[in-house]
Amino acid sequence: MAVGLGPLPTLHPVPGFELGIASAGIKRVGRKDVVVMRCAEGSTIAGVTTTNAFCAAPVLITRERLGGAVRYLLTNTGNANAGTGADGLANARRSCAALAALTGVAEDAILPFSTGVIGEPLPVEKIEAALPAALADLKEDNWALAAEGIMTTDTLPKGASRQFQHDGVTVTVTGISKGAGMIRPNMATMLGYIATDAKVAQPVLQDLVRDAANKSFNRITIDGDTSTNDCCMLIATGRAALPEVTEKAGELYAQLKQAVFEVFMEVAQAIVRDGEGATKFVTVQVNGGGNHQECLDVAYAVAHSPLIKTALFASDPNWGRILAAVGYAGVANLDVSLIDVFLGDVCIARQGGRAATYTEEQGAAVMAREEIAIRIELGRGDCSETIWTTDLSHEYVRINAEYRS
Amino acid sequence: MAVGLGPLPTLHPVPGFELGIASAGIKRVGRKDVVVMRCAEGSTIAGVTTTNAFCAAPVLITRERLGGAVRYLLTNTGNANAGTGADGLANARRSCAALAALTGVAEDAILPFSTGVIGEPLPVEKIEAALPAALADLKEDNWALAAEGIMTTDTLPKGASRQFQHDGVTVTVTGISKGAGMIRPNMATMLGYIATDAKVAQPVLQDLVRDAANKSFNRITIDGDTSTNDCCMLIATGRAALPEVTEKAGELYAQLKQAVFEVFMEVAQAIVRDGEGATKFVTVQVNGGGNHQECLDVAYAVAHSPLIKTALFASDPNWGRILAAVGYAGVANLDVSLIDVFLGDVCIARQGGRAATYTEEQGAAVMAREEIAIRIELGRGDCSETIWTTDLSHEYVRINAEYRS
Repeated sequence: MAVGLGPLPTLHPVPGFELGIASAGIKRVGRKDVVVMRCAEGSTIAGVTTTNAFCAAPVLITRERLGGAVRYLLTNTGNANAGTGADGLANARRSCAALAALTGVAEDAILPFSTGVIGEPLPVEKIEAALPAALADLKEDNWALAAEGIMTTDTLPKGASRQFQHDGVTVTVTGISKGAGMIRPNMATMLGYIATDAKVAQPVLQDLVRDAANKSFNRITIDGDTSTNDCCMLIATGRAALPEVTEKAGELYAQLKQAVFEVFMEVAQAIVRDGEGATKFVTVQVNGGGNHQECLDVAYAVAHSPLIKTALFASDPNWGRILAAVGYAGVANLDVSLIDVFLGDVCIARQGGRAATYTEEQGAAVMAREEIAIRIELGRGDCSETIWTTDLSHEYVRINAEYRS
Repeated sequence: MAVGLGPLPTLHPVPGFELGIASAGIKRVGRKDVVVMRCAEGSTIAGVTTTNAFCAAPVLITRERLGGAVRYLLTNTGNANAGTGADGLANARRSCAALAALTGVAEDAILPFSTGVIGEPLPVEKIEAALPAALADLKEDNWALAAEGIMTTDTLPKGASRQFQHDGVTVTVTGISKGAGMIRPNMATMLGYIATDAKVAQPVLQDLVRDAANKSFNRITIDGDTSTNDCCMLIATGRAALPEVTEKAGELYAQLKQAVFEVFMEVAQAIVRDGEGATKFVTVQVNGGGNHQECLDVAYAVAHSPLIKTALFASDPNWGRILAAVGYAGVANLDVSLIDVFLGDVCIARQGGRAATYTEEQGAAVMAREEIAIRIELGRGDCSETIWTTDLSHEYVRINAEYRS
């Protein structure tokens, strides 16, 4: 039921970044569920991880090791290794140690990632057994299979790619993501991996991943549930024959930032398009806020309201539910007489009440679309925020009543 | 699909408080949709109203008039008169003026209440036409019909009643409520009316309604959507032959408070039991918090998580989703290693991980019940909070995809 999400686009290889996929049989035999990524020596890496206090064991280890010289990223699906206590930490370290033994790199040059069911022991032997096959499969032109290898309840693989020219040199930014439920990223998404062959100093890369995630992964929500395993990693292999980016200025930085932001946005929005049970892709834009937080508060109140989400599923232009959500979003001293609300280009509410020009037919025409924009003008200031979400369908309930996440 | 909610209990008449019901045909011909309540001269009245900034026209008027000498409460269903701007205010005032003309009381002695679809003009002529029939129907023994008269998507009427003896005098507290969706009251519920024949000074009554609502209506949630029309009113007719309660002390005050709290709790919980599509009645108790707000933050994170709500619908003891919600509730410096979680009496998580003694069969046995208690021990302090909620079922989606609220 993915909305506006087709087959994977061309995913350009990133020189210095290889991916290998294997089947460990963690949850189901024969499913691709282990992905190893190798970064060329001298790569820099930066990342953001979940703010959930119950973060998974691999997240704790990845946080410790970020900033050091990272050479491998080891991902498994089918088991989140979250809520697993000391055993979970030991299992995550053990899987890294196994990969270190096979490759000869230091253990702390390996970052572990897990996604899948919460609270079950990680079947670490199965992962260990699959590592040689994953290593044998390592190649730069393997992004599409890796995008499949990190899927859980996703119905389609997700990826995006950009290239730009600088001083006659082609620079590539390619990324993949996964996630369809338990999605309200807060510093990152379920899992996202984006690599470039630009050479970027680590502090610059860290700012870039934080800023890009804030405008993309941290602006999507499916069910309001922030996951225990969110991680988003940005890797710079430095293989492009260009000077190192050491500060947030200059044309190369600007080009790189543009390409990174575009890839982040595309793979983040792909998660919403493939949201559990989604039949609509919904943009919620809040303008005229006195500050960014109040814009976000209003946008998330609208995006999380089960009443609005079910109305979106029913293609019902039920603007009263939108006004109600704006009203309870917690904005201090909200003057409702200044508020306009638009569905697409149709003004449905003007100065806090039904717009005189509005007809039910106009609203119904917008709601019948698969991609719907809700725009709220607060009339309080100059700040704006935009987030993306889905509707709430019968299929969402079926999936989550049947699937053990 | 109401959970544990049967026919109305006996609703004892409250001397000095009469109710009259009529059919105005606001949304559907023949449906009871107008209720007039008459308070004896000398009654005191106190109330709490929604914190939604987009509050309905009748809420604005009721707020203005609370504290004065109130004689009538006029309620209509089928139309919320919310998001209706200046016309909505004029219509609410006009319906009060019509009732004032028929009864000879001052216009500001009448409090208006509306519930139903948001954003449609109030059909005030239909309400005016129904007033004589409602007035002719006024009697003290009419609570059960009034409980039906205020229903919208409710499947059952909701009421509760208590009596106690003081100095040989019987004192009665009786109340009714309505609401099944757009329920996360914040100062009050959709609509609640509770009356007593005790004589209570207005400031004491105001504290009583606030305190009782805080422990009952303000601790329930179905979908997290705070309505535009929430109102809860407590009326004291003073007809019981007892001294006036003028301070929050003494045996009579204690008895009255106990009865009022019990009636509030019963009619508030009835709203959850009749929640849209509800198949479970869920108590979420958070103990060991450092303050009350963090207990509430954790409780509401659990109660609003669509993933937990669908797991409850599926009777799936998916404790990982509960840990995840606790983890993203926003509690500062949460030490997950101190947290225990119980399903009923079964410890499912101990010190932040799966309890060693826990078996899936134990969890499944609790989840199979219609009434489920989730208890979370934070291990940070002495504060506790308890709230009540429902599951998220296919029926919830069907109701809200089809019904225009």
